[in-house]
Amino acid sequence: MRKIPFEKTLKKTGKTVKVSGWVHSIREHKNLVFLDLRDEKDLILQVVLEKNLAERINLEDVIEVEGKVLKRPEGMVNPKIETGEIEIKGEKIRILSEAKTLPFDLRNLNLSLLEYLNWFPVVLKNEKVKAIFKIQQKIVEGFRENLKKLGFFEFQSPILCALSVEGGAEVFKVDYFSKEAFLVQSPQLYKQILVSSFGKVFCVAKAFRAEPSLTSRHLCEFTSLDCEVGFIETLEELLSVCEKILKGIFKKLEKEAKKELNLLKVELPKIPKKIPRIKLFEAGKTIFNQENLDDLDPEKEQKIFQFFKERENSDFVFVTHFPTLKRPFYTLPDPKNPEYSLSFDLLFDGLEIVSGSLRIHKFEDLLDSLKKRNLDPKNFQYYLLAFEYGMPPHGGFGLGLERITKQMLKLKNIREATLFVRDLKRVDLPLREEEKENEKD
Amino acid sequence: MRKIPFEKTLKKTGKTVKVSGWVHSIREHKNLVFLDLRDEKDLILQVVLEKNLAERINLEDVIEVEGKVLKRPEGMVNPKIETGEIEIKGEKIRILSEAKTLPFDLRNLNLSLLEYLNWFPVVLKNEKVKAIFKIQQKIVEGFRENLKKLGFFEFQSPILCALSVEGGAEVFKVDYFSKEAFLVQSPQLYKQILVSSFGKVFCVAKAFRAEPSLTSRHLCEFTSLDCEVGFIETLEELLSVCEKILKGIFKKLEKEAKKELNLLKVELPKIPKKIPRIKLFEAGKTIFNQENLDDLDPEKEQKIFQFFKERENSDFVFVTHFPTLKRPFYTLPDPKNPEYSLSFDLLFDGLEIVSGSLRIHKFEDLLDSLKKRNLDPKNFQYYLLAFEYGMPPHGGFGLGLERITKQMLKLKNIREATLFVRDLKRVDLPLREEEKENEKD
Repeated sequence: MRKIPFEKTLKKTGKTVKVSGWVHSIREHKNLVFLDLRDEKDLILQVVLEKNLAERINLEDVIEVEGKVLKRPEGMVNPKIETGEIEIKGEKIRILSEAKTLPFDLRNLNLSLLEYLNWFPVVLKNEKVKAIFKIQQKIVEGFRENLKKLGFFEFQSPILCALSVEGGAEVFKVDYFSKEAFLVQSPQLYKQILVSSFGKVFCVAKAFRAEPSLTSRHLCEFTSLDCEVGFIETLEELLSVCEKILKGIFKKLEKEAKKELNLLKVELPKIPKKIPRIKLFEAGKTIFNQENLDDLDPEKEQKIFQFFKERENSDFVFVTHFPTLKRPFYTLPDPKNPEYSLSFDLLFDGLEIVSGSLRIHKFEDLLDSLKKRNLDPKNFQYYLLAFEYGMPPHGGFGLGLERITKQMLKLKNIREATLFVRDLKRVDLPLREEEKENEKD
Repeated sequence: MRKIPFEKTLKKTGKTVKVSGWVHSIREHKNLVFLDLRDEKDLILQVVLEKNLAERINLEDVIEVEGKVLKRPEGMVNPKIETGEIEIKGEKIRILSEAKTLPFDLRNLNLSLLEYLNWFPVVLKNEKVKAIFKIQQKIVEGFRENLKKLGFFEFQSPILCALSVEGGAEVFKVDYFSKEAFLVQSPQLYKQILVSSFGKVFCVAKAFRAEPSLTSRHLCEFTSLDCEVGFIETLEELLSVCEKILKGIFKKLEKEAKKELNLLKVELPKIPKKIPRIKLFEAGKTIFNQENLDDLDPEKEQKIFQFFKERENSDFVFVTHFPTLKRPFYTLPDPKNPEYSLSFDLLFDGLEIVSGSLRIHKFEDLLDSLKKRNLDPKNFQYYLLAFEYGMPPHGGFGLGLERITKQMLKLKNIREATLFVRDLKRVDLPLREEEKENEKD
């Protein structure tokens, strides 16, 4: 007999079927045992067994059940589950995989962050934890689908690179056949190279920062939703692409992640038709009474958010025009005032989730910018080639996947929005035995 | 005036429009200059200019043209290009980005592999080279769409890991805060961990092998299309998932990559309804007259391919049941004969493009398998957690993206199917100056 998916049992009343899944709950009632069986889509199916058949069964065992599909009597129908109208009277049981006794209540998690991370492969069986990552994957899909609709080309960006771009200290070094290579800090240079041939591109790429401290917002390995838009010449065009993509993502979630959002009791934030924009130095003057505000810190980000929350009821703010020298070499200075750049951060609920800018597209200007920062153009030879033979004006941005997930789901720590955590002290598990206890929540 | 996309010019006859793109070709005729302009989708649009307007224009410049859309006279219609019925009489030209004089004929590439790779950011502007990567991306999309249709969950697999799994020597080491970390050799362990919660999963993930030689089939960084199928118990079920996915990919290409396949003069291979299967030791006996064939090499792969090409006209063969000890620790031994494993390679045109197996899903069996190989279970603590609390029987496989691209497009070297090449001697460019000349094609 072939196994059938849970949802097909509804049409098999009176017939004998075979199903398999995880044992989600076990309840005894007189000489009967009621099992909830869970499948990979988190559907639940009730199985009724004579006690003797259920003796060896544990929570989270993977079992196969053969039995008759019975209509439940009217008062026993469970409207909360998709298969609530029926149950299976189990006749044969096969335990495919035995589970040990769980060290915590998987259906009602109450763990410290440290325990949560150390037990993560098991914790992930909790439906709320699964919901976080289902929603996260929908964000990726929303990003992808909306950019494809706009004609962007997706590519697989590389991880190993020959030079460190964004900054010296926070880069991981790789022993590359006794030479030195690095892990990319962002797909930036590769996106730009492809703009010179594909025009508009995006990637879903891993990026790495050797972040030397443990904070609630930083990771050593994260997923960057990155795009680069060829043939645009104004910051406004770039911001509007960013708005469009964000709205597309939230629309996707509204349609396809309802169940998971309800489970987590989260409401999607409202994105205003036009997200408020403020120049950094204006924010300095208006909000902080400060003449020359030249960068943001978490506290300032929070205050800017609150300012716009109160005035415009927006959870989102674009802060623009950061000082040119505070931004990477490829950032385009504002032609009207080259001390400031055509750059932006998008704050969501007080946290920067997107960072972007128009880029320098003229070869000579790029050389100047490298030299101004004491960077050797020789090291950028490959990248510069793209600029020597016809690079369109362009701009782009990167959206931090774990950050947007954290903010949207109102999680306290970015580690809760990360599938496999890599930080200063941890790669899956703590790097040193003794740190298992020392690590702070 | 707002710029319009090339395809919209067709409906603007008699009107003045603004467009921008790369200068694809320049032809002079009396006192007129004819430009072909190329957009990011590789559409071509003809622009006619008075000679004085075209004086400073070079091939591959990015320009903006304002001018009137004119219907071409009947004899001058070019049916080969989408906008062939019209042309633009350019009135204003703005050069957005100047290109140097190209060092080779970009429209008719004739480069050694070495030159090809060193000039890759420019080479990528060639439409045939672009076509390779457009097709490659369609393969990724075909893989993704078909697995999603089958209910698989996509996840972002990590790159940094705490231990080396597949083998000691061919792993890259990372300096991780003065401790040691590694680059994943495959997403294997993470796929399996997720099977215990999500059941059926896949990922499009970068993987790394410190391959110490330069061959036409190996890369140090490659893209692995990886899936893991929970709740299956036979090799046949796994092979049939693999067949289904492959067919889905080729169907997608047939529908959506026609233009690119035609450009490269490539016909898609026929996949037989059922791909031939042969056990490794049977292949030994039947094809090589050898009693105990225990592994394949490129020459043997080629011969097995030829054997099945002649007998069954198939470009694909599944070779199954490799010796257990030739395969990684997680491979399930055949219960009928545990010296052999329930594993397979898929050969396409004589090259292994997929490798997979059923996996050990019982915790105790997995411990035994680790110990047999002198691997310390303590190092696999995190991974093993997933097996202690209810792991379904499962199997899976990884498809090498660059390899299938190479074979399908009949490219000589895998580097031609790789967007950014990392090998023994190269990360984008050669790692040492002197190797620019020494490197072999």
